[in-house]
Amino acid sequence: MLEKLKENVCEANLELVSKGVVIYTWGNVSGLDRESGLVVIKPSGLDYAVMRPEDMVVVDVNTAKVVEGKWKPSSDLKTHLEIYRSFPEIGGITHTHSVFAVSFAQAGIDVPALGTTHADYFYGEIPCTRSLTKEEVETDYEANTGKVVVETMRQIKSDPKLVPGILVRNHGPFAFGKDAKQSVYHAVVMEEVCKMAIFTKMLNPQAQMPQYIMDKHFMRKHGANAYYGQKSE
Amino acid sequence: MLEKLKENVCEANLELVSKGVVIYTWGNVSGLDRESGLVVIKPSGLDYAVMRPEDMVVVDVNTAKVVEGKWKPSSDLKTHLEIYRSFPEIGGITHTHSVFAVSFAQAGIDVPALGTTHADYFYGEIPCTRSLTKEEVETDYEANTGKVVVETMRQIKSDPKLVPGILVRNHGPFAFGKDAKQSVYHAVVMEEVCKMAIFTKMLNPQAQMPQYIMDKHFMRKHGANAYYGQKSE
Amino acid sequence: MLEKLKENVCEANLELVSKGVVIYTWGNVSGLDRESGLVVIKPSGLDYAVMRPEDMVVVDVNTAKVVEGKWKPSSDLKTHLEIYRSFPEIGGITHTHSVFAVSFAQAGIDVPALGTTHADYFYGEIPCTRSLTKEEVETDYEANTGKVVVETMRQIKSDPKLVPGILVRNHGPFAFGKDAKQSVYHAVVMEEVCKMAIFTKMLNPQAQMPQYIMDKHFMRKHGANAYYGQKSE
Amino acid sequence: MLEKLKENVCEANLELVSKGVVIYTWGNVSGLDRESGLVVIKPSGLDYAVMRPEDMVVVDVNTAKVVEGKWKPSSDLKTHLEIYRSFPEIGGITHTHSVFAVSFAQAGIDVPALGTTHADYFYGEIPCTRSLTKEEVETDYEANTGKVVVETMRQIKSDPKLVPGILVRNHGPFAFGKDAKQSVYHAVVMEEVCKMAIFTKMLNPQAQMPQYIMDKHFMRKHGANAYYGQKSE
Repeated sequence: MLEKLKENVCEANLELVSKGVVIYTWGNVSGLDRESGLVVIKPSGLDYAVMRPEDMVVVDVNTAKVVEGKWKPSSDLKTHLEIYRSFPEIGGITHTHSVFAVSFAQAGIDVPALGTTHADYFYGEIPCTRSLTKEEVETDYEANTGKVVVETMRQIKSDPKLVPGILVRNHGPFAFGKDAKQSVYHAVVMEEVCKMAIFTKMLNPQAQMPQYIMDKHFMRKHGANAYYGQKSE
Repeated sequence: MLEKLKENVCEANLELVSKGVVIYTWGNVSGLDRESGLVVIKPSGLDYAVMRPEDMVVVDVNTAKVVEGKWKPSSDLKTHLEIYRSFPEIGGITHTHSVFAVSFAQAGIDVPALGTTHADYFYGEIPCTRSLTKEEVETDYEANTGKVVVETMRQIKSDPKLVPGILVRNHGPFAFGKDAKQSVYHAVVMEEVCKMAIFTKMLNPQAQMPQYIMDKHFMRKHGANAYYGQKSE
Repeated sequence: MLEKLKENVCEANLELVSKGVVIYTWGNVSGLDRESGLVVIKPSGLDYAVMRPEDMVVVDVNTAKVVEGKWKPSSDLKTHLEIYRSFPEIGGITHTHSVFAVSFAQAGIDVPALGTTHADYFYGEIPCTRSLTKEEVETDYEANTGKVVVETMRQIKSDPKLVPGILVRNHGPFAFGKDAKQSVYHAVVMEEVCKMAIFTKMLNPQAQMPQYIMDKHFMRKHGANAYYGQKSE
Repeated sequence: MLEKLKENVCEANLELVSKGVVIYTWGNVSGLDRESGLVVIKPSGLDYAVMRPEDMVVVDVNTAKVVEGKWKPSSDLKTHLEIYRSFPEIGGITHTHSVFAVSFAQAGIDVPALGTTHADYFYGEIPCTRSLTKEEVETDYEANTGKVVVETMRQIKSDPKLVPGILVRNHGPFAFGKDAKQSVYHAVVMEEVCKMAIFTKMLNPQAQMPQYIMDKHFMRKHGANAYYGQKSE
C-alpha cells in the first residue's frame, strides 16, 4: 500500500544524512496522502544505513493508529499528525536536530530575516514557539508539541506556504513542504539560513533587511508572477 | 555554437558544488565571449547533478535576448549583463550564497583587508554595496542590482582586476574573473577570506594590516614584476 | 582471548575517525569484560589506518598489568581503569580531543543542559572536573585523572547511566557506555551538544531549559516506561 | 638526486590537501637534507592534483640557487632557507593559510596554551611575530619574513623542538619538524589548537592552564622519560 509514497519518504529520510543535517538515528520525515488520510513516517530509532521503503510505517492521520508496518513509528509521530490536521497545504514534514537551527531553538529566538537567502524561502521571521508548560509536557507531550506549533503559526498570522518552518523552543526545527522531499529541502535551507544569521549578528547586532527586498525575493520565487526556475516545475 | 565556452561555464558551475560554496540549485556562473558579445550562463533552477554543457543558455550581452538554449537563463542574468557592459576586463562572473560572504553582505560591512590571504587576491577592502531603494527593487530588480555593483566599484575608484569581487547588501557575493573559471576561484577565495575575517575580528576587533604589506602581496602576484607561480601561466 | 571484545573495541576506535571526532592517533576507546575483569584498549600512538583487532591490548582491570598484546596500551589506560573500578555500570570508555568538548574543558565550564538533544542522553549538566593539583599531576597523573573523574561524578550525586560523560579540566571529554560502541556514541553526541551550547550561548547568554522538559526527554528514552526506538533494542 | 626526499616532500605536500588545511595551490612544504645542504621544496603555484615527486625543486640551502628542477620553487623559499640556516634541529617546514591559525596571525595574538592538546605538542604559547617594517617588506621580503621568525623564536628563548610552530603577523602559520612529514603534522595540530583556543576564549575570556599540567603533558610525549606511543618510534 502507498508504495510510491513509502519510496519518497524513505528517500527523503536518507537525504537528511547526505545533506549533513542528522547524525545516527536523529531526525524524521513523513509524507501525507491526503486522499486516503494516511501518513507514511520513518520508524523510531532505525539506522539510516539499513533503512528501506518497506520499513516505513503507515498511520491514520486522524486516529494515529498504525495501519501497516513492522516497526513502531517515530516517537514524534503525534507532532506530525497535529500539524497535518491543521494545515491542509502541508504534504510533508521534516524534523532534525541540525546544529544552528537547534542553537536558535535553544536560545528561544526567532530567526530574523536578514537577507535574500532567507527571503527566497521564508516570508518573514522563522518563529520560535513558547516553552511548553509542565502540564503540556507531562500529558501527551508529542501531540502538545504539535499544538504549540500550530498555535505559533496562527499567532504570526502566517501559513506554512509563506513560512515553511518553525523552531520548537528548547528542542529544534520542524520544516514543512508540499511533500516529504520539499520539507527536507526547507529543513536544509533553514539550517543554512540559521548559520548565516548567527555570523551576521556576530558581525553586526543591528543587521536587518528592508521589507521591500523580502517582498521581491519571496515573490519572484513563489508569487503569482514567479519567474525563478523553469516553467515545467 | 560556442561549444568550448559552454563546456568551461558548465565545468565552472560544477566547481561551485565541489568547493562547497553552493547547495541545491543555488549560485550561478557565466562567461562572456567578447568577440561575439555573447554570454553563456547557467539555466535557472537546474540541478547541478544533471547539468551538462548543452544545458547552458546563450544570451546577447546587449539585448539580453536568448540566442540559443532550451532553458530559461539564471534569474540573475541581468545583473551579470550590467557588470559585463561596464567592465571590459571581465570575462566571467560567479554568484553564490556561501555562508561567510553572505554574513558580511547581510551585516552590510565591507570585508576588511586583514592579511596576506586577502591581499594576494583583493587589493583593499571587498566593498559591500548600499541597499537598493524600493524603486530599484520593484522595477527591473536584477538589472538594478548590477547597476549598484557598478556604482560601488566606481565609488571605490577601483576595478575588477584589483578587487575581483563585491558583496551586494542583504544578498551575497559576486566574484569576477578574466573567465568563468577564474571568477569561481575568486568566489571560493572570497568565502575563505570572509571566514578568516570573522574569526579575526572575534579575537581582536582592532585588527588591521599595514598598507605596505598589502601592496607587496598583491603586487608579487599581480604586478608588472609578479613572481608568484610559473612563467608559463 | 576475548576475540569478540577486541573486534568491538577496534571497531569502536575506528568509528572515532569516521565520525570526525579524532585526527591522527588522538583518542582512545576501551571495553571491559566484567566476568574476567579484563579490559581491552587501543595501543598507544598507533595509526588508525592500520589498526586491527589483534593490535588491541588486554589488561587486568585491578592490577593494570598487560595480560596479552604486542603493543603498549594507551597512555590514558590508568584513567580508564580507575573509572571502571568505581562504576560497575560502565562497560566502555571513550576519550577524544574533539574541538567543541575540549573548548568547554579548556574554559572550565560545565556544559549546560539547554535543549532536548542534550536531555535525550545527559540528565543534567555535563560536569567539568576541577584542575588536578600539582601533586596529583606529578605523581601517577593518569590514575589521578581517573580519580578526579570519579570524585566529580560523586559530587554531582549522579551516575554514568544518567550522565554518560564528563570533561576533564584543561584536557577534554571522557564518555561512558554499557560497552565500547555506546561510549563512542556518547562521545559523538557530547561533541554535537557542546557545539550547540556554544552557539546558543552566543545568541542568548541567558538561555536555559525548564527541568520538566529535561525529565520528559531523558525518561522517554531511558526511564522504566521509555518509548523511543523499537522494543527489540 | 634525493629521490627519496622528493617523494617524502611531495607526499607531505599532498597531505595538506587531505587534512583540509589548504585549498587550490596554497601552502608549501619543504624538507632539508642536512648532509648535502640541499632543500627540496614544492614548486610555486603548481596544482596539487597533478603534483609528483619529480616536480619538486632542489635548492642549495646557503645560496638559494636551484640545483635541479623544471619549475620555479615556492615564492616562500627564502623564508624556509632562513629558518633552516638558524635552527639545525629543523628538517622540515610547512606553511599554510589554514583558517583558524591565520585568524590568530591576523589578530596579532600569540596562541595561548589552554589545554593538553596544545601542551602535547607546543611547550608554551605559539608566538606571533611583530609586523615586518616597510623596509623589510620592500627589500628581500621573503628572507626578512624568515629573519623575523628566527628573531621571535630567539626572543621567547625557545626552540623549534619545544615550540614547533609560529605565526607570522598578518600572514599565517609556519610549522617545523624533524622532517617534512612531521612539519605537516604540526601544522595540522596548530590549526586544531587554534580552533579550540578561539572557542575556549569565546566561552571564557579568562581561561588558562596551570604550568605544571603543561610540563607534564609535553614531557610525557617529548621528555627524556617520555612514555607516549610505542618504543620503536
